[in-house]
Order: sequence, then C-alpha cells, then structure tokens
Amino acid sequence: MTETYAPSQTGLYVAVQAFYARQMQALDNGRFEEYAATFTEDGTFQHTPGTPEARTRAGIVAELLRFHERFRDDPVQRRHWFNQLVLDPQADGSVRSTAYCLVVRTKPGTPQPEIWPSCQVNDVLEIDGDRILMRSRVITYDHLDW
Amino acid sequence: MTETYAPSQTGLYVAVQAFYARQMQALDNGRFEEYAATFTEDGTFQHTPGTPEARTRAGIVAELLRFHERFRDDPVQRRHWFNQLVLDPQADGSVRSTAYCLVVRTKPGTPQPEIWPSCQVNDVLEIDGDRILMRSRVITYDHLDW
Amino acid sequence: MTETYAPSQTGLYVAVQAFYARQMQALDNGRFEEYAATFTEDGTFQHTPGTPEARTRAGIVAELLRFHERFRDDPVQRRHWFNQLVLDPQADGSVRSTAYCLVVRTKPGTPQPEIWPSCQVNDVLEIDGDRILMRSRVITYDHLDW
Repeated sequence: MTETYAPSQTGLYVAVQAFYARQMQALDNGRFEEYAATFTEDGTFQHTPGTPEARTRAGIVAELLRFHERFRDDPVQRRHWFNQLVLDPQADGSVRSTAYCLVVRTKPGTPQPEIWPSCQVNDVLEIDGDRILMRSRVITYDHLDW
Repeated sequence: MTETYAPSQTGLYVAVQAFYARQMQALDNGRFEEYAATFTEDGTFQHTPGTPEARTRAGIVAELLRFHERFRDDPVQRRHWFNQLVLDPQADGSVRSTAYCLVVRTKPGTPQPEIWPSCQVNDVLEIDGDRILMRSRVITYDHLDW
Repeated sequence: MTETYAPSQTGLYVAVQAFYARQMQALDNGRFEEYAATFTEDGTFQHTPGTPEARTRAGIVAELLRFHERFRDDPVQRRHWFNQLVLDPQADGSVRSTAYCLVVRTKPGTPQPEIWPSCQVNDVLEIDGDRILMRSRVITYDHLDW
C-alpha cells in the first residue's frame, strides 16, 4: 500500500503533473483545440455527471463550445485546480489517474472568487513513448456522489 | 537558502508527493487502516491542536473511528488539499516535511463546499530503501497559531 | 503541444516546485530577506497590477516591509497556494514559468479563511547549474484581466 519511488515512476508522476498543468491552462484560457488534442483520436470526455460523454477530438471541441455558450452573457474566468494525484498503472499499459479538483470562478471586477464544486478527476492515460494522451476522462462531483 | 536539484532530491520530492496523495485519498475515502499503515509501527499523529496525539497504527485507527463519529448524522465528504511542500533532510536520516493544508468539505446536494481551516502539516518521515513511512504528524491551525 | 518527459525536464519541473514551496513559505512566514534572495541581484517583482515594480533584492525587501505595514493593526496569516505550473524554456536559456495562485487569509481566532484573489504568477527563471533564481515576477489578477 505504501508508495515506492522507482525512477521510472518518478518520471511518469512528474510528466503527468506537467501534462495536466498545460492541458488545464489551455482549457481555462479557451484554447479548446489544444485541450482536445490531449485526448486520443477516439478519446471520451464526460465533464458533468448525468450528461452524455463527448467522443473524438472534434466532438470534444464541439461540446466545449456548446458548454461555454452559457458564459457568453455572464463572463467568468474559470481555473481548474488539481491536487493529490494518484497514478495506478494497469495491466494493459494504460495508467489510471485520479485527482481532486476545484473550480475557481472569478467575475470581472470582483476580487473574491467562488470556488465550487469539489470534484474528482478520473482519467485513463495512454503512454506512447514520451507522450501522454487521454483515453478517457470522467468527472464526479462530491455533492452528488453519495 | 536557494533550492538545488540533485537527482536524489528530485526522486524524494516526487515520491513524497505521490505518498501524500495516496495517503490522503485513503483518509478522505474512509480507508483508515490504509492511512494508519503509512505510519511507522510506533508512529504518532496529532490531528487537532490541544488534543492528545494518537500512538501506534492501531491507536491511529481507533482515533480516526472516534473522530469520524461526529459525521455519522451530519455527513460530509472531506478532501485534504496540500500545497507548497518543503522537505528538510535531518542528520539522523529522517526528513522533516512541512506543507500547507486546506480541508474542503462538501455536503450532499450542496455544490458549494466549505473550505476550512487553513493548516500546516508538520511531518517527520523515515525513508527505508524505497519506502516512506511517517514517524510523526502534527497539524497546526493558522487561526490558533499566533 | 503535448507534454513529453525527458529526464532533464523532469528534474527542472520538480526543482521549480521545490523552489517555489520554500520561497513562498519564506514570504508567508515573514522572512523577506530569504524571499528576496530567490531573485537575481537585479531582479524585478510586481506583486500588484498597476503598481511600480520593485527592483533589486534590497528594493524587494523594502517593498515587502512597506506592503506589510497594512497588516500591523489587522493581523492576517496569508498563505500563497500555487497550482498548474507550466514551464517554457526560452532561447536565451531562461525559463518562463506560469502558475495559478490563490491567497488564503486567516485571521486570529477565525477558522474560516478568506480565499482571494485568484491570480496568475508570471515568472522568468534563470537556471545557473543547479541553482534557480528569479529574474522577474509579475502577478496578474483574474478579476482585472479582461
């Protein structure tokens, strides 16, 4: 149960942190094509419990454009924070990744952000040489997950 | 005073991050035995200032069960977030570890979590080959620490 | 666009995390000389949009002393949290570093901190052998950055 630190694991753990940071800065800054490119060609993304998952990079971009329509008349700068990342390599060579997530929401002119919801990120990552790609991402919400 | 990055330090820093992530996901998901197993056999844990510390793995499990009784009729999903981890190797081979901590508290059906208190984690870690174990953990609270 | 994980990048990514953690614990605990020593001799620091930047280590210490005067009669323990760190090596050997930042503010006796503002840290780092130094830091605020 205790964590060990083989050098190979060290490299992967850091690489996933760096991968997530660039991926989420892309999403939060509206670079949806760049976000979608972090998924495999046939990757899937369910950002909200109870909604259908988006499929393929083009499908993920389309879903992000649709979702962000709600912010057109009510602008908000969202920042997705991650914490407590756990990686579990799978027998098929993929890696299960779970992390805590909070969404920090700032409105123009208001210094105090709203911070909600508390989520869990549940990803399956494919490692291809020195590249990381997302096979799937499912977000669960702590207030719904009882 | 400036941080250097010898490869050995890199491995340890990442290993401690991964260790904490798995440890705190275990605690927050109610796997108290797994949490207690991250301590040495005679490890000590003081989670709240002014209360006696728990001792030994069995003692830590018992204390966690006692503490969580309060949530039986008032369920809350707690998530412990860590940040700004500093490691200081000691002359005896142990490692002092300090980090910021926030507790994110979500109630069923309420998307907005409460986030409090702001704490400091003060650990002493034992490194045994490629294993990490906690000799002690003391939590200090920012609102009491003046 | 996808992140790769060459071993050299792994070491740098971890080193910058450790560097920031020690740097920000120094700042939040009032060790301003130690914070200033993380900058190059002629480093610059703009902590608030629209204000002049501080220059040189002595200038940064002076500005921090001036800024913290406001907390003399209204004590608050501030903790700067960082997340989603992205590093971009530059042609001149420096490294651009961007990260999310939240300021957690605790008042004596009040367990619930205030958490604001949501910021971006925009640094230029110099890597000198195994040392990291800050050439510049500019903080942008999400609520002003539209």
